[in-house]
Amino acid sequence: MLIIGELINGMYKEVARAIEQKDEAVIRRLAKDQTDAGAHMLDVNAGPYTKTPVQDMQWLIKVIQDTVDTGLSIDSTNPDVVEAGLSLAKKRALINSVNADEERLARVLPMVKKYNSMLIGLAMDKKGVPRDRADRLEHAAMIVSVCQTEGVDMRDLYLDPIVFPVNVAQNQAMEVLESLREFSVLSDPPPNTVIGLSNVSQGTKKRSLINTTFLIMAIANGVSAAIVNPLDKNLMDGLITAELFMNKTIYCDSYIDAYKKS
Amino acid sequence: MLIIGELINGMYKEVARAIEQKDEAVIRRLAKDQTDAGAHMLDVNAGPYTKTPVQDMQWLIKVIQDTVDTGLSIDSTNPDVVEAGLSLAKKRALINSVNADEERLARVLPMVKKYNSMLIGLAMDKKGVPRDRADRLEHAAMIVSVCQTEGVDMRDLYLDPIVFPVNVAQNQAMEVLESLREFSVLSDPPPNTVIGLSNVSQGTKKRSLINTTFLIMAIANGVSAAIVNPLDKNLMDGLITAELFMNKTIYCDSYIDAYKKS
Repeated sequence: MLIIGELINGMYKEVARAIEQKDEAVIRRLAKDQTDAGAHMLDVNAGPYTKTPVQDMQWLIKVIQDTVDTGLSIDSTNPDVVEAGLSLAKKRALINSVNADEERLARVLPMVKKYNSMLIGLAMDKKGVPRDRADRLEHAAMIVSVCQTEGVDMRDLYLDPIVFPVNVAQNQAMEVLESLREFSVLSDPPPNTVIGLSNVSQGTKKRSLINTTFLIMAIANGVSAAIVNPLDKNLMDGLITAELFMNKTIYCDSYIDAYKKS
Repeated sequence: MLIIGELINGMYKEVARAIEQKDEAVIRRLAKDQTDAGAHMLDVNAGPYTKTPVQDMQWLIKVIQDTVDTGLSIDSTNPDVVEAGLSLAKKRALINSVNADEERLARVLPMVKKYNSMLIGLAMDKKGVPRDRADRLEHAAMIVSVCQTEGVDMRDLYLDPIVFPVNVAQNQAMEVLESLREFSVLSDPPPNTVIGLSNVSQGTKKRSLINTTFLIMAIANGVSAAIVNPLDKNLMDGLITAELFMNKTIYCDSYIDAYKKS
């Protein structure tokens, strides 16, 4: 599965400060550590408070690409920031994200084609977060439909059912897990699915255990990608072991080391 | 979910020796420790090598019931041993197990009724272990059909898809996980499902990680019961957290302690 490292995000104090002070060392370390830990792509988000989001995204991408050659997930709701990122990305990038809103899709889908990028589609619309699996399926189907009309390859689309914190919306966990199965029958070939994992443990006392358990359950339900903290060893061990059961990697006694080297 | 402790089994050297030497202390400790760790039932198996299986089962049950009041899973392929166990059990017991074999079912189902016990039905027949999910479903459907004809309440039946070691039959893991979903639509109300978990990690180097990951995946697929080592803290933490996502327990910051006290 596609592992997207979440740590280069301006919502973290260390990253916000690095962006403000143009402290390359922090960003280089996060880029290298996440890549070494197994991230296939790095999410890049300048954070919610910046007044210069385009410039910040450009600076982050230059520093990251000067350090590693890992692919980038350009994380912004602002299409201008996304385009600034895409135009710099050396490898095929992932747009994170669009939702089931016609205007947003109309602005973003041309970029998918222009830059040959991949796309995360959130199963929500401009009215806000989804209530249940039916709501998620409706929004996901709308995104699939528009993408098909516009000629986006379903294998480049990652549908995100929107993960809620378990401590505030516990009943949403099952809705998300079942949505992963439902999304996969929306087209043939099926669209991919993705979860932004860490939100599930927001505000809880046992973040690694809760993240790891939910990720394993999502893998059992066929999730194709996850935005995670790849430096969490328990999480990565659980992910690698779940992949084994999904028959995506081959068992050997040192399968965890083998996975990380592959 | 129903947690069945696996440790009182003559295949373990310590237990085999305790049975041979009538060393009650070993059995008492295993009964108490598993119960304290959260087991709702204790599996009791005199082991493969004993020449006095009926007497051994009777001794084990007397010692266990003198120590704890946890329910018993009478584990033997020999119906005489099962009946000896059932006739001593103070609480409602679980027969472990019968398979999709007419003669075995004809011998065991009357005991289910006579002793008002629950039953594990293995998704295999006398020809041996199942090849794939279709094979499992066929055997499970046969057991469901016979049980329905004989008036066994589906809520007392636990269908076991048969777990294989991941290091010798890796592709069977997905078959087992999907079988759990398929079994649950065989009747309404649905039969329960159960897995004998530890077999999945037999002969591997990371038994706890492999057991825990597979159990979480099975829970995501709706498994109702598992025969496990409840003394494995990682396993129990994963189980309790997965139950949270299945919305079977209520989140609080100390949900793991709360589960163990409940």
